[in-house]
Amino acid sequence: MQGVNEGGRAIYTLADFGSFHVGGRMVEVSGQPRKAIAFTPDMTYEHDPNGRFLVEQIYVQYFVPAERCFETPLTLLHGGGLTGVTWENTPDGRPGWLHEFLRQGFAVNVIDNVERGRSGFCAIDGVWEGEPVTRTAREAWDLFRFGSPNNFDAGKPHLGQRFPVGSMENFQRQFVPRWTTTSAAQFRGIGEALRRIGPSTLICHSQGGFLGSRAAVENPDMIRGVVGCEGAGWVEAVTPATVGDKPWLLLLGDYIEMSERWTKAKLDTLAFAGRVNAVGGTASVVELPKVGFPGSSHMFMMDGHSAEIAAWVGNWIRENC
Amino acid sequence: MQGVNEGGRAIYTLADFGSFHVGGRMVEVSGQPRKAIAFTPDMTYEHDPNGRFLVEQIYVQYFVPAERCFETPLTLLHGGGLTGVTWENTPDGRPGWLHEFLRQGFAVNVIDNVERGRSGFCAIDGVWEGEPVTRTAREAWDLFRFGSPNNFDAGKPHLGQRFPVGSMENFQRQFVPRWTTTSAAQFRGIGEALRRIGPSTLICHSQGGFLGSRAAVENPDMIRGVVGCEGAGWVEAVTPATVGDKPWLLLLGDYIEMSERWTKAKLDTLAFAGRVNAVGGTASVVELPKVGFPGSSHMFMMDGHSAEIAAWVGNWIRENC
Repeated sequence: MQGVNEGGRAIYTLADFGSFHVGGRMVEVSGQPRKAIAFTPDMTYEHDPNGRFLVEQIYVQYFVPAERCFETPLTLLHGGGLTGVTWENTPDGRPGWLHEFLRQGFAVNVIDNVERGRSGFCAIDGVWEGEPVTRTAREAWDLFRFGSPNNFDAGKPHLGQRFPVGSMENFQRQFVPRWTTTSAAQFRGIGEALRRIGPSTLICHSQGGFLGSRAAVENPDMIRGVVGCEGAGWVEAVTPATVGDKPWLLLLGDYIEMSERWTKAKLDTLAFAGRVNAVGGTASVVELPKVGFPGSSHMFMMDGHSAEIAAWVGNWIRENC
Repeated sequence: MQGVNEGGRAIYTLADFGSFHVGGRMVEVSGQPRKAIAFTPDMTYEHDPNGRFLVEQIYVQYFVPAERCFETPLTLLHGGGLTGVTWENTPDGRPGWLHEFLRQGFAVNVIDNVERGRSGFCAIDGVWEGEPVTRTAREAWDLFRFGSPNNFDAGKPHLGQRFPVGSMENFQRQFVPRWTTTSAAQFRGIGEALRRIGPSTLICHSQGGFLGSRAAVENPDMIRGVVGCEGAGWVEAVTPATVGDKPWLLLLGDYIEMSERWTKAKLDTLAFAGRVNAVGGTASVVELPKVGFPGSSHMFMMDGHSAEIAAWVGNWIRENC
C-alpha cells in the first residue's frame, strides 16, 4: 500500500513508469498527386501522400509501484468511444482506478485501443470501412444507465444512481469518435499489447469485454485472470486450452432490468460464464448491487463509490488470480 | 533530484499525478437520419447522429514530484502529427524528457494538442475544413533532418546525426493524422490548458512553437518563460505587456544549413527573438551544436543525447525563469 502525504493526498512511489507503442501494419499508397500544405503560416510543404504508412498500432502506458502487493500486473482496457482516460480520473475530479490499483500495490498497464487516443487513427482512404461515430451526452445517459432518456434534459438520474451526473459535460470531454468496423484490427492490437506486457490480469470494460475476451483466448499464456466490467458481448469459442484453470470475474452494475439492451447483455454474460465453466475455467457473474454497491452505472469505475469497488476488485484479484 | 533504485533505474516519488480535459465547445447537429450500428456483434444500437457534440477539448496529463527543485511547473507541448508521447519515450526505448524533468524535480504537464491523441478529433461533418494528413517515415526523415532524402532507403543518416534512426518504424508508431486547418481551435485549447494549469514554463516543439507562442502572448499571466524547440514559425505581434520581462530560449538543432526549410525557420526564429527583445523580453537563440550538442535533429528530445540536453535546459530554466 502506498503512503499518504501531509496534505492527505496519496504519494505514489514508482519503480518505473512510461509508455510504448507496439504492433500495427504497413499500408502502401501510390499514384496520388503531391499536395501543397501549410503546417503553419510560416512553414509550407509539398506533402507526398504516397508511401508506406503504419496503421493500427496500439499505445500502452505503464506504472510500476516500488512496493508491489502482487507480482502479476494489471492491464486495463477501456470501452467504445473512450480511451485509457477512463481509468485515469472521474468526471468530478477524483482519481481513477489506475490510481486506486497503484495505491493497492499493483503494477498497472493502461491501453488506448487501436484507433483511439494516443494509438492514433487511420486517415488513409480505403483502409477502414465506414465512418466514425461520435456519442452525445444524451446517448451516453441512456446507454450507460445514468437515467431514463426522458429525464436527460432535467438531469434527473435513476433513484440512488451513483455516477456524477452533475459533471456530464466534463465526462463528454473524454468521448472520442469510434469506427464500428475495426474489431479485427483492435483485437489483433490488444493481443500485441498483451504479449509485449507479458502475463497480466486483464480488466476490460464494455466493448473492451468483447475485444479483450477474444484477445485473451487467443493469448492464454498472457492471461492470469480477467475482470470483465459489463462486457458488450464476449468471445464465442472457448476451450480447455484457452480458458481452463483461469478465473473470470464478470461484473454487472445496477438498473439492468430497466434496459432491454443490458438485460440481453446480462443473459449474454451468464451464457459466457456457462461456456467458460463448462470447459474448466472459473467464471463468476457478480451483480454489484448484491455485494454492497447499489446504484452502480455502466461506468462504475467513475461512480461515487468507484474507489470502494476498486478495493473489492483488488481483493478478488489477490485471492483468485 | 529523484533517487535511483537497486536495479539502477529511477524511482519516481510523486506527490500527485493524473489527467484532465478542459475547454472545447458544443456543436449542434440536426436533421440527420438515425442509423443502426453494431457496437459489437452482440450489441446493436440505433445511433442518433443529432444533438450536442463537444469538440475541440484538450487533454493534459500531469506529474508532481514529492520533492521539487523549482516551484513553477513545466508545460510540454508537442509538434504536428504527434502527441504528448513525444515527451514520454524515445523510439529506441529510453525515457523521455517527461522523465528527465521529473527526475530534476520539476512538476510536468504534458498536453495532447486539440485534435491529437487523448484530446480526440472531431468527426462531425463540416466542423473542420479539409482532410487530415498523415506522415510517412520517408517524409519525417527529410523534414526532421535525420538524413538526406536520397539516403532514406539505405537508412544512412547525416554524418554525426544522433536520432536513433535504427528505430524509425517504432518512431512511426507515434505518428497521428493532423488537420492543417485547426490552428485557431488549437491555440484556443492550449490557452484553456495554460489557464487551468496556472503559471508555468512552456516547452514547445515545432508546430507547438507557433501555436504555443501565440497562446503564451494571449495568456501572459500564465507564462514564466518559454523554451521553444525549433518552432515552425512564431506569433507575429508581441508587446511589452505580453512578453516584457519574460525569458525565451529558442533552441535550434544541427544541419540547419542543409535544409532550405530550416534555414528559413532559423531566420524566422532570429526575427522573432528580435521582436521579443525590442519590447523588453529576453530572447536568446541557441544553436545546440554550439553548446555541446552536435548532431541534434529536429527531434532532439529523442536524440541519443536527449537526457543531456534536458539537463542543460533544466539548468537554463532554474537560472532564468
